[in-house]
Amino acid sequence: MRILLVGAGGVGDAIAKIAARRDFFELLVVGDYDESRAERTVEWIRAKHGEAVAARFATTQIDASDPDVVASVARDLRATHVMNAVEPKFVPSIFAGALAAGADYLDMAMSLSEPHPSDPYAQTGVKLGDDQFAQSGDWDAAGRLALVGMGVEPGLSDVFARYAADHLFSDIDELGVRDGANLVVTDEAGNEIFAPSFSIWTTIEECLNPPVIWEQAAGWYTTPPFSQPEVFVFPDGIGPVECVNVEHEEVLLMPRWVDAKRVTFKYGLGEEFINVLRVLHLLGLDSTTPVRVRSADGPVHVAPRDVVASALPDPASIGPRMTGKTCAGLWVTGTGTDGEPREVYLYHVSDNEWTMAEYEAQCVVWQTALNPVIALELLATGAWSGRGVLGPEAFDAAPFLELMARPEADGGYGQAWGMEDRLA
Amino acid sequence: MRILLVGAGGVGDAIAKIAARRDFFELLVVGDYDESRAERTVEWIRAKHGEAVAARFATTQIDASDPDVVASVARDLRATHVMNAVEPKFVPSIFAGALAAGADYLDMAMSLSEPHPSDPYAQTGVKLGDDQFAQSGDWDAAGRLALVGMGVEPGLSDVFARYAADHLFSDIDELGVRDGANLVVTDEAGNEIFAPSFSIWTTIEECLNPPVIWEQAAGWYTTPPFSQPEVFVFPDGIGPVECVNVEHEEVLLMPRWVDAKRVTFKYGLGEEFINVLRVLHLLGLDSTTPVRVRSADGPVHVAPRDVVASALPDPASIGPRMTGKTCAGLWVTGTGTDGEPREVYLYHVSDNEWTMAEYEAQCVVWQTALNPVIALELLATGAWSGRGVLGPEAFDAAPFLELMARPEADGGYGQAWGMEDRLA
Repeated sequence: MRILLVGAGGVGDAIAKIAARRDFFELLVVGDYDESRAERTVEWIRAKHGEAVAARFATTQIDASDPDVVASVARDLRATHVMNAVEPKFVPSIFAGALAAGADYLDMAMSLSEPHPSDPYAQTGVKLGDDQFAQSGDWDAAGRLALVGMGVEPGLSDVFARYAADHLFSDIDELGVRDGANLVVTDEAGNEIFAPSFSIWTTIEECLNPPVIWEQAAGWYTTPPFSQPEVFVFPDGIGPVECVNVEHEEVLLMPRWVDAKRVTFKYGLGEEFINVLRVLHLLGLDSTTPVRVRSADGPVHVAPRDVVASALPDPASIGPRMTGKTCAGLWVTGTGTDGEPREVYLYHVSDNEWTMAEYEAQCVVWQTALNPVIALELLATGAWSGRGVLGPEAFDAAPFLELMARPEADGGYGQAWGMEDRLA
Repeated sequence: MRILLVGAGGVGDAIAKIAARRDFFELLVVGDYDESRAERTVEWIRAKHGEAVAARFATTQIDASDPDVVASVARDLRATHVMNAVEPKFVPSIFAGALAAGADYLDMAMSLSEPHPSDPYAQTGVKLGDDQFAQSGDWDAAGRLALVGMGVEPGLSDVFARYAADHLFSDIDELGVRDGANLVVTDEAGNEIFAPSFSIWTTIEECLNPPVIWEQAAGWYTTPPFSQPEVFVFPDGIGPVECVNVEHEEVLLMPRWVDAKRVTFKYGLGEEFINVLRVLHLLGLDSTTPVRVRSADGPVHVAPRDVVASALPDPASIGPRMTGKTCAGLWVTGTGTDGEPREVYLYHVSDNEWTMAEYEAQCVVWQTALNPVIALELLATGAWSGRGVLGPEAFDAAPFLELMARPEADGGYGQAWGMEDRLA
């Protein structure tokens, strides 16, 4: 397996660092528009693991916005797999470039949605991943696989869905992804500050787009932002967090392969963050349409959302000043294999102190990066195989969860996942 | 009187339009960095009042940031008075330029404050107007007058303070400026939108700076932003509005000329607006320090606060889509001239429907502009005179309030002000 990793931001960096402990691939080339970022990642691997490990890594400059460039770089490297680790707006170009180069493809976020033109808060318009699924025939005909949505959410959450359907339930009422954390970021003086642990640009996109829900009878439909708030109690000391509906890939993926009456995604934004997003929206600061602004060099045009991102700390940089845990999981209700009502929460927790100590990566970013590496390994060993555009739930969940949880000493990733039975 | 009006933004435009109905001056030259804005104002006057009135107006290009330019333009025009109607950051240059040109000076906001370096939410640093008062000797020596803070707040509120001290009270406990409105702005579709009726740039400056309070025993001191919230009931149908302490010139002006035990300024921001300001501060979007932001033309540097201002509707443009009234006033408590406890609210209300119909100016902007025109007229007629740097409360309030309220048919401004006795 020869991997072209596109993007050496927080998640790309962590993917490379996690892969450095594994030997399933022959070469991993870290590509970035700014090649020095890729070089920093490989330098870290060299310093941590030595020259023999670093020899399986290389770097390249790459413009992810140009499918021809992506195809050309992938061909030159004889890449068998293109791993997309950049912002979702680059999905179309990397997706096309990989197919053109005859490589398999993985991503962690799918092609972007567009709201319904006249009824955005009730009906779907262009859905997340629609553009990619429309090309499934081309991938299938080429004998190539595009494994989409293979981070933690989407990704691990989808693996949990398949696992629940295959092993825990005979009939599923709801597949409800629930994501929450108790992370706190402090400034140099030790005062708590506002610093989202994931790209604010993507978070705004997710949270202000009309949330999508799937129901067996109605199909996909949307609601206004922040709808159906509920307090979900997260495990491992995180506790209760206010969660609201958010547009997310799982709702578009799970119903394609897993039987359920309803699929939802609720994000534990917490009240403060929801308020911040509401205000950004109220003031038009979520907008990606450039506005004219004065500057020392005369008037310039910038997108307000880019300015918000610039004004906040870089999520990849806050790791050393962050404490707490993040939890990704799937709450499943329905009838168990024994015919009795069942309710479980399947989850994985990532502790920032540990990810920083082991990987110099903050926990949300690291947790996202873990899962595509496991998937790549399953593809390399042949435990997983497929063609066309597929979600994680199209594959058998058991080998994934087994490899993930198996101790490192025994050749696994040493990442325990948990299951809570929630019916009293 | 020959007036150089610096600034043809919302307030400058309204000053010229109000002055067009008066004949106390020989010439009023509207200056702006963008002279076409000044020309628009004079065109409006020509269309509304005809050539004879418009003949007393002219326009000029002016760079308000350069004191030499201001002085040179004022000299060339033989200006007797320089009226500052631009952002407070230009106070120092216009103030210096006017003195150098041998002209009297008026403004509606004073030189900016700087927080105390180590204890900003308890002690004052550089106070509003400090830089100007420090130069009072120079103005006095030159026999020139700088009448500072002569808008509505500061301005009319200070006139009310002097009036209360001279005519209503023998002893004043508190001079409490209280400002509130029930303005609503709608978009083309009729939906209520967030659109501050005054410069968001200045509003952020005012509201996030440490609020200043004056007490006879303690002198000037500061508190954290949004301190001491109270619900104040405004007259004329506006009703109850949540008000909080805000840094404002009146607190720096009134104690210099009027005896009181305590002076405060509370702004009826309302809960939504307070929340917006808190979030802007939390995210660093109130900052005036440029951040690096991507743009279609490559990286640029912009101040987040400038971007917030650019993303919102121009306050001068929202008049046609705004309804409601704004109230500026002074709540005074103490002992009346009869020796009995007394509590009054002195106020002036501006109705947007009326100001738009009469002046094509929105009501907050128009209300600000009204008062310096009255002051200029009192200076022109000799009813007011002085030298050095003086606030509105340094002058007799009676002729101001009389001229303001007198019907237009009788040569006044036809702007009734109100007084409510508030003791049950």
